[in-house]
Amino acid sequence: MTQTLDIAVIGATGTVGETLVQILEERDFPVGTLHLLASSESAGSSVSYRGKNVRVREVDEFDFAKVKLVFFTAGPAVTLSYAARAHAAGCSLIDLSGALPADQAPQVVPEANVEVLAGLKAPFQVSSPSPSATALAVVLAPLRELIELQYVHVTASLAISAQGREAVSELARQTAELLNLRPLEPKFFDRQVAFNVLAQVGTPDALGHTLLEKRLVRELRQMLAQPSLKISATCIQAPVFFGDSFSVTLQSANAVDLEKVNAALEDAEGIELVEAGDYPTAVGDAVGQDVVYVGRVRGGIDEPSELNLWLTSDNVRKGAALNAVQVAELLIKDLL
Amino acid sequence: MTQTLDIAVIGATGTVGETLVQILEERDFPVGTLHLLASSESAGSSVSYRGKNVRVREVDEFDFAKVKLVFFTAGPAVTLSYAARAHAAGCSLIDLSGALPADQAPQVVPEANVEVLAGLKAPFQVSSPSPSATALAVVLAPLRELIELQYVHVTASLAISAQGREAVSELARQTAELLNLRPLEPKFFDRQVAFNVLAQVGTPDALGHTLLEKRLVRELRQMLAQPSLKISATCIQAPVFFGDSFSVTLQSANAVDLEKVNAALEDAEGIELVEAGDYPTAVGDAVGQDVVYVGRVRGGIDEPSELNLWLTSDNVRKGAALNAVQVAELLIKDLL
Repeated sequence: MTQTLDIAVIGATGTVGETLVQILEERDFPVGTLHLLASSESAGSSVSYRGKNVRVREVDEFDFAKVKLVFFTAGPAVTLSYAARAHAAGCSLIDLSGALPADQAPQVVPEANVEVLAGLKAPFQVSSPSPSATALAVVLAPLRELIELQYVHVTASLAISAQGREAVSELARQTAELLNLRPLEPKFFDRQVAFNVLAQVGTPDALGHTLLEKRLVRELRQMLAQPSLKISATCIQAPVFFGDSFSVTLQSANAVDLEKVNAALEDAEGIELVEAGDYPTAVGDAVGQDVVYVGRVRGGIDEPSELNLWLTSDNVRKGAALNAVQVAELLIKDLL
Repeated sequence: MTQTLDIAVIGATGTVGETLVQILEERDFPVGTLHLLASSESAGSSVSYRGKNVRVREVDEFDFAKVKLVFFTAGPAVTLSYAARAHAAGCSLIDLSGALPADQAPQVVPEANVEVLAGLKAPFQVSSPSPSATALAVVLAPLRELIELQYVHVTASLAISAQGREAVSELARQTAELLNLRPLEPKFFDRQVAFNVLAQVGTPDALGHTLLEKRLVRELRQMLAQPSLKISATCIQAPVFFGDSFSVTLQSANAVDLEKVNAALEDAEGIELVEAGDYPTAVGDAVGQDVVYVGRVRGGIDEPSELNLWLTSDNVRKGAALNAVQVAELLIKDLL
């Protein structure tokens, strides 16, 4: 008989949690008993898994000794509340919230730094990075041998869905109001997001950086093993429901060989390179897919050491739930 | 009696042309006779000016000897067809199409390089740069004394309106179709632009750069008088009707003094600096305004020589029509 693993998913009613459950099913992950957990507000609802409705239970009442592996797909506060308890009960855990420090739970994207896993021991503690850092790591990793990275510039246009279902409804509602020439009443956002671009996602710190921007920089540096890599990051909110897009400029110490860059991207795992002249979009290409799309591969204007790229990625799937499951797949032989 | 100037506006039925006529009226530009011109397709319609409907006539039949000043607000092909004829007839001309070389008609943004005008002689030939270069020049010019600019990185999220009325209708139509769950049928664009971000505006050249990106780099270098300034530029299409947004990262040779930067932006002409923590948006701030809005002024994450900015600007008004009229205002004493 095939061996299976009893697992728990915390935050099972959220967008990422639900997608993660769906991906476990799609990829035939050897799940024994699946425990779906959430806060007291969301407990009691159910989520579909292998044709059955699985009841979501309250995380606070859960006995972590029942499972071997826990996915934390809720926010940082939830991870900070329960990670220690899960770990003490002998569970391995994969956290998607960014709450745990890198020395406790290193960020891992299999396409970028799978070697980190070899240095860990069960029960494992691994972080699955932010959707932005995940997409960037997938694409920058195969370029490391070609480009002596000096500086990475990223403007990330993030999907509304990363902010949850209320945000998604608000974009739809605002859009309908505007198209019907009704007065706009922002609720979830503090201003018009429909047919507009917001310059920041979340509240900036005293220096002007948002948590998402700092997380992107910190996680990317760790995964690329370049702790002092210069990275400028701006995360903006586009009126897009699903899928992130990234305008990326890399500075290399040397002239960039575009032919080799294209070949490396063509060969790399987890990447779909679109034809020169064309470009991928979040909605048309990335959403629902398991790869990061890359296009607009080009040098600088009169600057041979510059490389420009355009990436799109499904922020919920490749950027979060799928990456966490891919990490779990790599750990599974040590957990069964 | 006040002196007036007979002028012509070519492309008078376009978005920029119409706005330019409106701005001439708003700013009480001393217009004698106003000749509105367009291609044969648009000739015959009329545009409102000072409470009257002015008939739009065919440019091909126009006698340029009738006017002293011509605004070229149509595309490069129209400028290339008629600029020589207008110049030979003794007209000064302000071209917004980017068709004329800098040594013939230098790019001028009064806030950035007004001194260029002093070196010209009537009949004048001046270019009003692309909306992106205009917005960037307004903001970078007052920083030149504080920052030893080494590299400028720009991701410009451009409004649909820059592509004309058909593009505006298409975004509205696509959006309504999606909200009503009807099948999407792209026409003007080759794919879904509603709730999506397109990675390029226009067709890229063999090296992957679009005309708008090359124009931005060329015009900005000329206006900042730094012909070899490194500039990475990516122009993307957001589902926004009006107003451009710019994510900008500057690299300086030295550490950036943020306090001085804020003070310089606060004092500069043509700029509205929003409070720290807040940020401007295209729709909420820039559209319909005569200034470029600046926010998110911040250094780098662990990088003191980096400066990040977020700009928004009305692409039709401040980015095009208003700048052309501002240039005309500076030339007028030599034209009357």
